[in-house]
Amino acid sequence: MAHLPTRSFQAYQVFAANTNVGKTILSTGLVRAAAALSIGADKKKTKAFYVKPVQTGYPVDCDARHVKTYAPLVETSRLYAYPDPVSPHIATSEPPPDTEVLQATINSIRTFKQSLGQTDKGWALLETAGGVNSPIMSGELQSKFYRPLRLPTVLIGDSHLGGISTTLTSYESLHQYGYDIPALMLFDNKSRNHQFLERYLAKAENRPLIHVLPSPPEKLADLKADAEQLHEYYRKTEDYFKDVVQELDKAHHSRLDRLEELADKARTSIWWPFTQHQTVKEVTVIDSAYGDIMTTYVDPKEKAATGANGNQEGTWKEMFDGCASWWTQGLGHGSPALTQSAAYASGRYGHVMFPECAHEPAVKLAETLLDTVGQDWASRVFFSDNGSTAIEVALKMALKASQDRYANLGQATGRVEVIGVDGGYHGDTIGAMNACSPNAYNAQVTWYKSHGHWFSPPTVLFKDSQFQIMIPAEMTNSKEPMKITTDNLSSVFTKPAANDPRLEIYRSHIRETLTRLTQQEKRSFGAVLMEPVLMGAGGMIWVDPAFQRCLVEEVRAFKGFGTETSPSKNAHVPVKNNWKGLPVVFDEVFSGCWRLGRKSAADMLQVTPDIAAYAKLLTGGLITLATTLTTDAVFNNFLSETKTDALLHGHSYTAHPIGCAVANTSLRTYRQMESHGDADQARQDWGAQPYGNLGVWSLWDQKVVDKISRMDIVEGVVPLGSVLAIQMRETNGPSGYASLLSQQVQRRLREKEHEDSEMEVAVFGRPLGNVVYMIASQVSTREQLAKVENILLRTLEGKL
Amino acid sequence: MAHLPTRSFQAYQVFAANTNVGKTILSTGLVRAAAALSIGADKKKTKAFYVKPVQTGYPVDCDARHVKTYAPLVETSRLYAYPDPVSPHIATSEPPPDTEVLQATINSIRTFKQSLGQTDKGWALLETAGGVNSPIMSGELQSKFYRPLRLPTVLIGDSHLGGISTTLTSYESLHQYGYDIPALMLFDNKSRNHQFLERYLAKAENRPLIHVLPSPPEKLADLKADAEQLHEYYRKTEDYFKDVVQELDKAHHSRLDRLEELADKARTSIWWPFTQHQTVKEVTVIDSAYGDIMTTYVDPKEKAATGANGNQEGTWKEMFDGCASWWTQGLGHGSPALTQSAAYASGRYGHVMFPECAHEPAVKLAETLLDTVGQDWASRVFFSDNGSTAIEVALKMALKASQDRYANLGQATGRVEVIGVDGGYHGDTIGAMNACSPNAYNAQVTWYKSHGHWFSPPTVLFKDSQFQIMIPAEMTNSKEPMKITTDNLSSVFTKPAANDPRLEIYRSHIRETLTRLTQQEKRSFGAVLMEPVLMGAGGMIWVDPAFQRCLVEEVRAFKGFGTETSPSKNAHVPVKNNWKGLPVVFDEVFSGCWRLGRKSAADMLQVTPDIAAYAKLLTGGLITLATTLTTDAVFNNFLSETKTDALLHGHSYTAHPIGCAVANTSLRTYRQMESHGDADQARQDWGAQPYGNLGVWSLWDQKVVDKISRMDIVEGVVPLGSVLAIQMRETNGPSGYASLLSQQVQRRLREKEHEDSEMEVAVFGRPLGNVVYMIASQVSTREQLAKVENILLRTLEGKL
Repeated sequence: MAHLPTRSFQAYQVFAANTNVGKTILSTGLVRAAAALSIGADKKKTKAFYVKPVQTGYPVDCDARHVKTYAPLVETSRLYAYPDPVSPHIATSEPPPDTEVLQATINSIRTFKQSLGQTDKGWALLETAGGVNSPIMSGELQSKFYRPLRLPTVLIGDSHLGGISTTLTSYESLHQYGYDIPALMLFDNKSRNHQFLERYLAKAENRPLIHVLPSPPEKLADLKADAEQLHEYYRKTEDYFKDVVQELDKAHHSRLDRLEELADKARTSIWWPFTQHQTVKEVTVIDSAYGDIMTTYVDPKEKAATGANGNQEGTWKEMFDGCASWWTQGLGHGSPALTQSAAYASGRYGHVMFPECAHEPAVKLAETLLDTVGQDWASRVFFSDNGSTAIEVALKMALKASQDRYANLGQATGRVEVIGVDGGYHGDTIGAMNACSPNAYNAQVTWYKSHGHWFSPPTVLFKDSQFQIMIPAEMTNSKEPMKITTDNLSSVFTKPAANDPRLEIYRSHIRETLTRLTQQEKRSFGAVLMEPVLMGAGGMIWVDPAFQRCLVEEVRAFKGFGTETSPSKNAHVPVKNNWKGLPVVFDEVFSGCWRLGRKSAADMLQVTPDIAAYAKLLTGGLITLATTLTTDAVFNNFLSETKTDALLHGHSYTAHPIGCAVANTSLRTYRQMESHGDADQARQDWGAQPYGNLGVWSLWDQKVVDKISRMDIVEGVVPLGSVLAIQMRETNGPSGYASLLSQQVQRRLREKEHEDSEMEVAVFGRPLGNVVYMIASQVSTREQLAKVENILLRTLEGKL
Repeated sequence: MAHLPTRSFQAYQVFAANTNVGKTILSTGLVRAAAALSIGADKKKTKAFYVKPVQTGYPVDCDARHVKTYAPLVETSRLYAYPDPVSPHIATSEPPPDTEVLQATINSIRTFKQSLGQTDKGWALLETAGGVNSPIMSGELQSKFYRPLRLPTVLIGDSHLGGISTTLTSYESLHQYGYDIPALMLFDNKSRNHQFLERYLAKAENRPLIHVLPSPPEKLADLKADAEQLHEYYRKTEDYFKDVVQELDKAHHSRLDRLEELADKARTSIWWPFTQHQTVKEVTVIDSAYGDIMTTYVDPKEKAATGANGNQEGTWKEMFDGCASWWTQGLGHGSPALTQSAAYASGRYGHVMFPECAHEPAVKLAETLLDTVGQDWASRVFFSDNGSTAIEVALKMALKASQDRYANLGQATGRVEVIGVDGGYHGDTIGAMNACSPNAYNAQVTWYKSHGHWFSPPTVLFKDSQFQIMIPAEMTNSKEPMKITTDNLSSVFTKPAANDPRLEIYRSHIRETLTRLTQQEKRSFGAVLMEPVLMGAGGMIWVDPAFQRCLVEEVRAFKGFGTETSPSKNAHVPVKNNWKGLPVVFDEVFSGCWRLGRKSAADMLQVTPDIAAYAKLLTGGLITLATTLTTDAVFNNFLSETKTDALLHGHSYTAHPIGCAVANTSLRTYRQMESHGDADQARQDWGAQPYGNLGVWSLWDQKVVDKISRMDIVEGVVPLGSVLAIQMRETNGPSGYASLLSQQVQRRLREKEHEDSEMEVAVFGRPLGNVVYMIASQVSTREQLAKVENILLRTLEGKL
């Protein structure tokens, strides 16, 4: 893909509201005017290009020939042609692949662009076939097919009776696919549709300029006479078309102006999260995004500021979204399916009240969650807005439930605390921070107070083609950490055999610690809180699954928290559903919803929590929404006749229908992908069993990961599901969160420009201390990932 | 408005993808089949009704006559007819008002429904004119015009070449207006569009069943022969149409089944916020919402459970959204403008990365906020997800800035605290809770700790036609509170004259308190935090603006916090922009963005804060998004060469493009409404000056509010902008947040059913202790509010 427009090169696509509304005539007039016109301040002559990617009814019909006939100055191209005058999806039984057709289209425009002299101006027009949502050969709708280019669109309106509707529905469809529509052209006739459209669209945001043109002459039977009258029509209407070209020129430069102002405007008005503004260098200007790709614009000033070559033209850079836009991406940017879910929910409800109310998207989402990530353990869903609030809710659920139990047992407690894992991260609201060990994030917050005990975890890394489990020295009372290795990914997750030395080490360390905390230090605890398997923001720390399993089991068996058979305040809570020891809270904000390949990290641990939080991938990467799931036992603890015994927590937009609808579509898609075996090849490559059996795999290529694991500058790799985290070996400079090594690698990944070669792609990553990570979306293709792997490998090898 | 479908009564609308696609023929076939058919398990005969609300080309064209001719069993109706065979917006120069046309349409169907016998089944079809987005007489698009009914839609597809596009764009438009489309009908012809559509829509959610019908015969010149062949066509195709009617019947009952299951499903799977589940009675099932109205469905079981009459039919209840869906509503539910903004942003970006990035919706929103609510004081915008996170961000900004200043001055501080107002509420995350005085919300939270001093505020209420300012006894060292009255709303906000006794009372009380806190109690403070003007969740407490103004001024003048000229850590911070005393944080989550009539409550106080938080109305009521604005002085405090000096706070979906785009549309609309003088009548009624001058008013009718203020059961009223809060006089039972009086009034407001009379409406309110409040949206019409005022008055008078 490539975004082509620059200051001196404009490209447009023509879409029509219907067939037979004058698309070719108006396209011809436009490109003819562009070729005849000197546009821009310097009055340079413009060279014009017309491409018809798909032509049916050929050679009787040939729009490119029509253009060549009536606009001989224009260079034309026709790419795919079929004799049958029908829709392209019917015209051939052997459709070329979409990627091929799109690449051919891009190449035709690019070739024209490259043919231009240094001082030439170029103007290209792509004429689509049929209407906005007419299919291309493969059956894909043109609206979606051309979306990766996101060319500014000239919409040809329908001037006939009824044409207001087809014009506006086409406009609305293009709009929801994310196109900009600088011009709407239509003929003047007795329906006077243009008058209505002008009035109606005057209220719209980003409204197109409406251009009304004289109707073309009625077709004559005599071909020569017909041609002559058409020549005459184009001559007579030339000024109308020149106006359109001039207006498009204005819109084009205004768009580039806005893009070139954006970085500076952001620098002076925005306070970015987690950003030291004093050290910000290049600001990435994102024009749009589609699938895995973010289309960014590098303006000349920015390029100069970063010391790049002094080319005065802005350039486009298409970047693989390697940080999954802060770990949110699931189904690709600009997903039409998600957009349509969102739009329907917005149209049907907007946002509606939730407490004591029910609406279909929320109830359906609750049921789907209970049937997937909550299967076999959860029965209630609480909605909030982001991972941090979902954890605050989880803490409120757990801590009150525990306190009530202590009270029932007659045990007075002060403020109860959590038991967690050192290096964990649960969000930036202060309650969630207080449930983390002291770290770089919370050190600056005056109200932060560590309310817990944090176990130092044994960790796993893939290094030198082996999975290495490192057990901290303190657990074995030795000077050096203990190392255990295995060469199969899934076996890291297999429950250890009874004679595995880890079990005794972990269990006795946990037991001794719990006894010390409760008996010697007299501390009271109300919850266990952890990110199962992978601690994300703490630095992509892969915790030995066996340790987390032991921690949960030991807490559940520990007698010092009150016995597991104690009834809760409400006698009707069945004991079998009651939590044992302490409520176990899993923070699956990062790991949940198929991030690591399986529906939840709990599923990989083979442990069910009492409470768990989900966000990020929940909505496929579109919009913020979070949920906290729990059991009846925890829920019932808040029941009474008194309002103030309820969980008095809520956010205004709780369970907003857009978020719920989009989450339903996302979960449905993830489940379908799983049952369709989309990851079967990856499973096989990583030695995991096919769908239906336990198994763990990575979406990243096994051979590439293996190679990285053997590099000297690499401490080890974490390859789990869509996550590939590379811990760099810091040889000098600050370590941990303050490390700059990852930042340097990320900068090199970003620098690579795409237009040099079709096989390459720049990669947008985000530094995380000494960790370089790439997170794919759930729908990234192998072809796409191979490009990223290639550039990543070459960067790490120092070849880029 | 009225939703009409019940188990025994079905109603549909027919929309077409274009003109001339067979809409009337297919409508005739459908309604003819319905009349001939016994549908449902009990095989009762069905009576059918056809209505054509708008007919052009009459009487030459008359679709109702066509129906009557070929389906004589069907009752037909034609409402508005015009001779010119053109689009309705051209056919008449004197268009009837939309409300009249819609009401006539509803009445025609309702009259038919009422004519049915107890055991009859009814089936009604509404045929629209032209295509989906064709205009009605006023120029409003039919898609929007008919939306309040949200009838299930039969979409007539376009079978011609190119018809795939017009059919799918029409489908997408209907979908984004929130319509359900159970059936898509089209003719079989050589384009075979139906084959493609079947394949394509198989992937869609809520996909329509596609019905293919034989094409009708070509029109004959001989009228009699033409009629005969049409009769023959309808006879021959009867079974096709019966199939469609049967499938629609299934979809109809499945829809009602789902609605009737929804309450129970919610009861067993959802954990509602702020809800004591043990005392939940009726669950409100929300089918959809539009404008101010939520369309709810009361199923027979629910009605029986609440002791209502034992009617076995479910009923629809249309309710005014009197709690503005938890204070979010600004531009009405299901707003097409907001939907289109959201859909465009989703199609263009999805969500994209924000730190060190720039995208147009976010930058535009930042600039708009700085130009409106942030005008003259703010220069930086930080994005988060909800009011609570926006406050946590504000606190982190303020407290670190203050601590740094103390450190620069060589003053060691422990944990710094906030100065606030008793009764304030700032959200449910624990950091925000800790910035509130102890209350019913935070009492149950084990990690809650009050980090502040809370002033008891003087308050304002409108009682007995006067605005009464009550000054707490502790401020005047007397036994009784002091009362000051005025009879003009705006004058409550006027800066008091120098000899106003309040000034000395407030100032000396504040000064003495600050001195005691800092000198005697040795406490350190880092921020002032308050909801300016109106403390919402704390019970709609209207604080005397003069007091809040004095509090800010005294804090800014107080020397005990470090001098106002002290430089911050970064010497380049201009002193003139530096905060004085302590950073002043305004929580405008509830009061901001025109809620109280003006852009911000700060604007009403005539005080600029150093930091302020906005959410709720920011997105017009569609989706969750929050912002925290601040000054360069506060921002600069986080600048250094060290990453960990930055504000290390962020959420994954920070500045999500959908939220930003929708907020831009909302702010643009609010500003336009203001400059267009939409509230001028309300201003005048409340004695405020027109736009451009200071002034305060209520959207609620002055006479009605006056009447309520004089009721014995009313303690006083707060009429500010869109908010009308009535503090009830609790004669017995618990008071404050635990009070049930408001709940009783709200229940009565909800019970009133709408179908009894067109002039009435049920009102969905939400109890808040002893306060009954109504919050209008910013676009509620006077007519709509008059209905609500009527039922509210009569309820308070005990007449309902």
